Amino acid sequence: MIKSYLLAPGPTPVPERVSLAMARPIIHHRTPQFSATFADAEAGLKELFQTSQDVLILAASGTGAMESSITNLYSAGDQILAINGGKFGERWGKIGAAYGLQVHELKVEWGKAVDPQDVRKMLDQHPGIRGVFVQASETSTAVLHPVREIAAITRERDVLLTVDGITAVGVCDIPMDKWGIDVLITGSQKALMLPPGLAFIALSARAWERTKKATLPRFYFNLAKERENIAKDTTAWTPAITLIIGLREALSMMREEGWANVFTRHALLAEATRAAAAALGLPLVAPTAPSPALTAIYTPPHVNGSKLVAYLRDRMHVTFAGGQDQLKGKIVRIAHLGHIGAFDTLTAISAFELALHHFGHDVVLGRGVSAAEGVLTAALPE
Amino acid sequence: MIKSYLLAPGPTPVPERVSLAMARPIIHHRTPQFSATFADAEAGLKELFQTSQDVLILAASGTGAMESSITNLYSAGDQILAINGGKFGERWGKIGAAYGLQVHELKVEWGKAVDPQDVRKMLDQHPGIRGVFVQASETSTAVLHPVREIAAITRERDVLLTVDGITAVGVCDIPMDKWGIDVLITGSQKALMLPPGLAFIALSARAWERTKKATLPRFYFNLAKERENIAKDTTAWTPAITLIIGLREALSMMREEGWANVFTRHALLAEATRAAAAALGLPLVAPTAPSPALTAIYTPPHVNGSKLVAYLRDRMHVTFAGGQDQLKGKIVRIAHLGHIGAFDTLTAISAFELALHHFGHDVVLGRGVSAAEGVLTAALPE
Repeated sequence: MIKSYLLAPGPTPVPERVSLAMARPIIHHRTPQFSATFADAEAGLKELFQTSQDVLILAASGTGAMESSITNLYSAGDQILAINGGKFGERWGKIGAAYGLQVHELKVEWGKAVDPQDVRKMLDQHPGIRGVFVQASETSTAVLHPVREIAAITRERDVLLTVDGITAVGVCDIPMDKWGIDVLITGSQKALMLPPGLAFIALSARAWERTKKATLPRFYFNLAKERENIAKDTTAWTPAITLIIGLREALSMMREEGWANVFTRHALLAEATRAAAAALGLPLVAPTAPSPALTAIYTPPHVNGSKLVAYLRDRMHVTFAGGQDQLKGKIVRIAHLGHIGAFDTLTAISAFELALHHFGHDVVLGRGVSAAEGVLTAALPE
Repeated sequence: MIKSYLLAPGPTPVPERVSLAMARPIIHHRTPQFSATFADAEAGLKELFQTSQDVLILAASGTGAMESSITNLYSAGDQILAINGGKFGERWGKIGAAYGLQVHELKVEWGKAVDPQDVRKMLDQHPGIRGVFVQASETSTAVLHPVREIAAITRERDVLLTVDGITAVGVCDIPMDKWGIDVLITGSQKALMLPPGLAFIALSARAWERTKKATLPRFYFNLAKERENIAKDTTAWTPAITLIIGLREALSMMREEGWANVFTRHALLAEATRAAAAALGLPLVAPTAPSPALTAIYTPPHVNGSKLVAYLRDRMHVTFAGGQDQLKGKIVRIAHLGHIGAFDTLTAISAFELALHHFGHDVVLGRGVSAAEGVLTAALPE
């Protein structure tokens, strides 16, 4: 039977309720009707970001918001610290270099979280650094970086902390205002359960102050202009209307589930998947600081991870992600974020076991599922 | 009865067939399945642009593509000529200024098309100008600029011609390669009948050469990087997957109708609307060079155009656009582009007549419709 299952770390499955909302006849964006939708979505985004600041909505993928966090806050020659522990961490340095910043890189071994004390040392050694850039969840390695601890260091100095929360916001608790994060970013196709095409960014009061001094050129991604338009319940340029209509619906679903329950669900599914990997005797890429958004598992040495992922996708209709760069062919990445429930995770583990069996690995079928079910008993309804 | 009619110049109505395609379960973008969809869409875009060059797909609104046409082709201090005959013409100068270009502006009276000889004179006076920027159809005034004649001037010199075809590509015949247009841009929410969120841009061979010398900073909108990815049937950053799936469907619909028929349909609906305005004794904003994308009509002096548009939208559920800046309160703009047929145009004219009547204007009800029907007889099926 051909029935497809999407378990990659973005795009994540779009709930039927969201798809139907987006399939309704389109409305014009300069109307009271759209403004009301926009205002609702904006209120939900503030809850999601746990901030009193405006959350700006950009028609772009997450990389556009990452770029905007540099062009709106820095000037050519400014020094920044980019924490690079994976494919996405690498991107900060590339964007900074494209705009003529002086980028210090703190390289972190793939699979490890950055040590906040290393961040402190870099800032002490280079007092000219004006901003620190980090992923909350590094999707290429499934690592969760210690954002709270880094924020405790940056907020004591004239150093802004920019957090790429693309696979973390809406997955786990990242209270922007409480922790003192200066710039927080996410995208639509992750925990928000929407198709790709929207990026979101919020700035702290001191980050907004910094924008006044920043001289890098920008036009499409002009955050001050977006902020002026938010006050009028609209965007500076034509908004991606249907995605914003879907956004309101997705945020309603998350509110109905309850933010704490959303975070607990992701944590539990990740724990269940880690238990399955342990039961199957397969090591994790990030054993010490695993992300609740996804789990990266090494395939056995004689099983090529890329071939396993292609077989799962093309023959079993189960889509995982494989490894990138130095992890290419060595791992599978199973996502937990978005519209994913316990039975989706058990499906993922079953499919993984069966595919390993197909590739000749000596697997006791059901052992991973059994371990995962053991974890899930903790969440059985009364 | 509350039944809504969208007749604004973007977003335009999304056909059910396109909505249903976009509502199907989302697929991952790094899969053979998505690559096939992308390749189909890409082939259709080349027909739409009438070019042998790659048509790049950006996750952005049209303004993002406009910005990219500057940042990828120029360096700080370069001289450009911006043709400004309306709200969108104005934007070229703003983007150029934001990126430190030396912008010469050729101001054109609102409602008039630019005279190609004025372009020639400006280029003769300022031989340092490296690029000319123009709208094919200026949406704020419903003017069609003489792109073909301007291209005949620029292609003889080392001057690139960038054309914003956002409300023209897919509306009327703009053969990019044949005319010698160097950069052609459009957006998803116009003739392409999709929600907003995608922008499209194609470059001529000499424009691609120019990108190698351009030193303005860019990262998210890096056209050379997008071109490399097109060769692999994908985009540099996460594509707006559902919109691209819808794009393939919309392009199929246009191909099935036939490109020439699509252009004829738009021309006829515009002609019918102009005939209605004449029969109602109301002047056009652009009588000498009217766009087939939309018609801008002055409201009678005692009828406020903004109030008329609000009444039509909020009480009659018929959405037109009003005037901007110096035309605010003075006009209505009725769109013909996208998924609009003869009966939609007749509905628009009926609604306009009834609303004028409501505002106390002495209108012979049905006179505009009668004139429009007269035009439409030319296209009655055998």
